[in-house]
Parts: sequence; structure tokens; C-alpha cells
Amino acid sequence: MRLRHKPWAADFIKEHDDIAVLNPFDYRGKWQELFEINQPIGLEIGTGKGQFIANMAQQNKHMNFIGIEKAESIIVTAIQKVLDAEVSNAHLIHENAKDLRDIIAENEIDIIYLNFSDPWPKTRHEKRRLTYHAFLDQYQSILKDDGRIVLKTDNRHFFEYSIVSFSQFGMTLEEVTLDLHKLEDDTNVMTEYEEKFSSKGQPIYRCIAKF
Amino acid sequence: MRLRHKPWAADFIKEHDDIAVLNPFDYRGKWQELFEINQPIGLEIGTGKGQFIANMAQQNKHMNFIGIEKAESIIVTAIQKVLDAEVSNAHLIHENAKDLRDIIAENEIDIIYLNFSDPWPKTRHEKRRLTYHAFLDQYQSILKDDGRIVLKTDNRHFFEYSIVSFSQFGMTLEEVTLDLHKLEDDTNVMTEYEEKFSSKGQPIYRCIAKF
Ligand SMILES: C[S@@+](CC[C@H](N)C(=O)[O-])C[C@H]1O[C@@H](n2cnc3c(N)ncnc32)[C@H](O)[C@@H]1O
Ligand SMILES: C[S@@+](CC[C@H](N)C(=O)[O-])C[C@H]1O[C@@H](n2cnc3c(N)ncnc32)[C@H](O)[C@@H]1O
Repeated sequence: MRLRHKPWAADFIKEHDDIAVLNPFDYRGKWQELFEINQPIGLEIGTGKGQFIANMAQQNKHMNFIGIEKAESIIVTAIQKVLDAEVSNAHLIHENAKDLRDIIAENEIDIIYLNFSDPWPKTRHEKRRLTYHAFLDQYQSILKDDGRIVLKTDNRHFFEYSIVSFSQFGMTLEEVTLDLHKLEDDTNVMTEYEEKFSSKGQPIYRCIAKF
Repeated sequence: MRLRHKPWAADFIKEHDDIAVLNPFDYRGKWQELFEINQPIGLEIGTGKGQFIANMAQQNKHMNFIGIEKAESIIVTAIQKVLDAEVSNAHLIHENAKDLRDIIAENEIDIIYLNFSDPWPKTRHEKRRLTYHAFLDQYQSILKDDGRIVLKTDNRHFFEYSIVSFSQFGMTLEEVTLDLHKLEDDTNVMTEYEEKFSSKGQPIYRCIAKF
């Protein structure tokens, strides 16, 4: 995603501490306390501009949502989208997901969403891919025993890599879809990247996996 | 595959008992005896017209090959192809793979090839798919502990189904390729179906899995 420097971004985030969680490390083990209703939590990693989390929160009132996004200039747009959606079941964290285990305790999360994660195609960058085994290790720890990872991407190599990585970690694949938009899944909520790539005619891949 | 009735097919098979194994059930537990050299055995299920097994046998002298094909009118072409290839490391069986365990004993096989298996798209025909769990059960029994299944197909739904079926059976995926012919894998030997579909521009999917 193109990063445009936004000098006002840091202030914007601070001003919206009803949506942005400014002290996420303090919530470790008590994320439910942040929400009005104690109900399953979906965590989106690499939230981007927030269309997914804002619409998911609107369409799934029986769930709570947390989005984590490391880029300051991008998360501001996500904050604005959640604001506009007028929902109380979505919060955002401006952090790097590599510290996930310090932010979220064991078994706090029901579903992890990986939407159009940066593919890092070069082998020497494998460790940065959000489906590298060190990340899976963290996901396993924060997910409930019957939790799921739902991954969507347009990137063929990242998808191939991720399926194999899940499998080699000992995870079980529940669903593999090589052309999501042919499925007519009414519950699918599109992300910004999903709209962009599918409008170009590219197939969208989805995989649902569990530990 | 279109089945053309060939009244001479049964006789043709009998006449070529150097290539076609007429009493395959008698070889259970002693398939190596059939070959000149005791070396790893690759088993192709649904051999079709035999281009794959004939070329594999030619290019991989350090391996033995068995092809099983249930259609009489099709296996005759495979017999002719193996004949023309002038190889001694390939044999064909005219049987239905559902009886595999009666034909092949535990740990006799090193690699199973599933090439462009009939997809049986209707859910009520799931049991006929060669990656249905009852088939995997047989493959697990006849494969060595470190054996592999190599599956190629052009059929998206069959591929999605098969990956999930492997995973849910507890198998581990070693490789998933959503566009095999972009890989530039020199060792890939094309089947008749593979040539047909890839020449139409369709991507070929491949998966390598182990128990
Ligand atoms: C390609 S964009 C996709 C954005 C959005 N999910 C979508 O589908 O439209 C990937 C996003 O993930 C964020 N990201 C990448 N690695 C991250 C990490 N380790 N922690 C938090 N965010 C990350 C990037 O800053 C970027 O906004
Ligand atoms: C779609 S064709 C593919 C042929 C060849 N593998 C190729 O890639 O060109 C599938 C073949 O598998 C055979 N076949 C399907 N089910 C079988 C079974 N249970 N046992 C043996 N052969 C089978 C069919 O008769 C047919 O020849």
C-alpha cells in the first residue's frame, strides 16, 4: 500500500481513542472488557483502510472485532470508516502483528482474518509473511481451540505458500476456494484490495484452516 | 473419456501379457518380482491412454511403474504406447482401483500418481472421486511410510476438494501449485489430458502430499 506521510495522523489516532486502543498491551487477557457485549472476537491482521472490519462489524452484531494495522497513515482511514459505520463492536490497534502475543492472551480470539497480506515474494523475506510458521505459532496461542484462520488473497504464490505452511504446521484445511467470487457467498465482505483485484478480473483465493 | 467399443480389445490385452498383467491379484506382495530391477515403484491410477506412464518409464529408468486403468477400450492404447516406448519398467493392470488393496500389499508403492482423475462434480458421486477418504485409506495402506501422492488436474473443484480431503485425512501438503506450467519443471511429464487442457490455456494444478 502506498504510504503518504500524514503529519496529522498521530494526533488523529489519539483523538479517537474510543475506536483506536492506545494502550493495547494493557488489554492483554481482558479484551472482552473493551466491548459492550461479551461475544466471539474476530481479529483482522493488516486491516488496511478498514472497509472489511467496518462492514463486518455492521453485519455481524453478534461478534466483536479487533483490527491491527502497523501503518499510521493507513489506520487513520480505518478509524474514519469505523466511525462512519457507527458501530460499537469494532476497535483498532496501531501496532505490528509480530508482537501479537504480548497484546493478546491465550484463547482470547475466535477467528483470525488475514486479508490480502503483503506477499513478500522473495524467499529471503519469507519470515515477514503473515503465514510464516513463527506467526502461526502466535495465532495458535491466541486462538481458541476451535478457532479458525480465514485467509483471502489475490496472490497465487502467497496462497500456495500459505496452504502448505498451514499444513506443515499441522493445521487442517476446512475449505479451499480458488475463485471465491464464483461461490456466491452472501456473507463475504469485500476488502479494498479484494474490490480492486476482482474488478480487474483476477480470481480471489480463500482458505479456512484450524489448528 | 469417450468410450468407443473395441471388440478386439480383450484379445489385444491377452496377447500382450508381457505388458498387461492378466492375474494382478496373484502379484499382491510381490510386485517387485515382475520387474527386472528391484527399485521404487510408481503407481498411476486411471492411466488413460498411457502417454504419462510410457514417457515416465523412459525418462526414469531407476523406477518401476504400474498403471491401473479400468476401461478396456482405453487401456489398449496405453499398452500400445508402452510397447512403442520399448521399456521393461512399466506394466499395466486392467482393473478398477476400488480393489487396490486386494491387488497391492502394504508398503509396496513409493509414489501414487493421480492424473486428471474423473472429477465427479455432483455431491452424490463424492464416493467415486479418487481422493475420497475411502480411497485415501487404501493409498495409505499400499504406500511406504515416506511415500507421496502426486496429483495433477485441470479441474478447479476437484483440486479444491482433494486438497481439503488430504488435509482432513491428516495428510501433509508438501507442494501446492496453481499453475504448474509456469513453474518450468523440466521433470514434468505431460498426460494426454494435460496437453489438451493446457493447450487451451487452462492452468494445471498440482499437489504433492504425504501421510
Ligand atoms: C496489502 S495491504 C491489504 C489491506 C487490507 N487488508 C485489504 O485487503 O484491503 C496489507 C496491510 O497489512 C499491513 N501489515 C503488513 N504487515 C503487518 C504487520 N506485521 N502488522 C500489522 N499490519 C501489517 C500493511 O501496513 C497494509 O496496510
Ligand atoms: C479423465 S481420464 C484421464 C486419463 C489420463 N490420466 C490423462 O491424464 O490423460 C481418467 C481415467 O481414469 C480411469 N478411471 C477412473 N476411475 C477409475 C478407477 N476407479 N479405476 C481405474 N481407472 C479409473 C478412466 O477410465 C479414465 O481413463
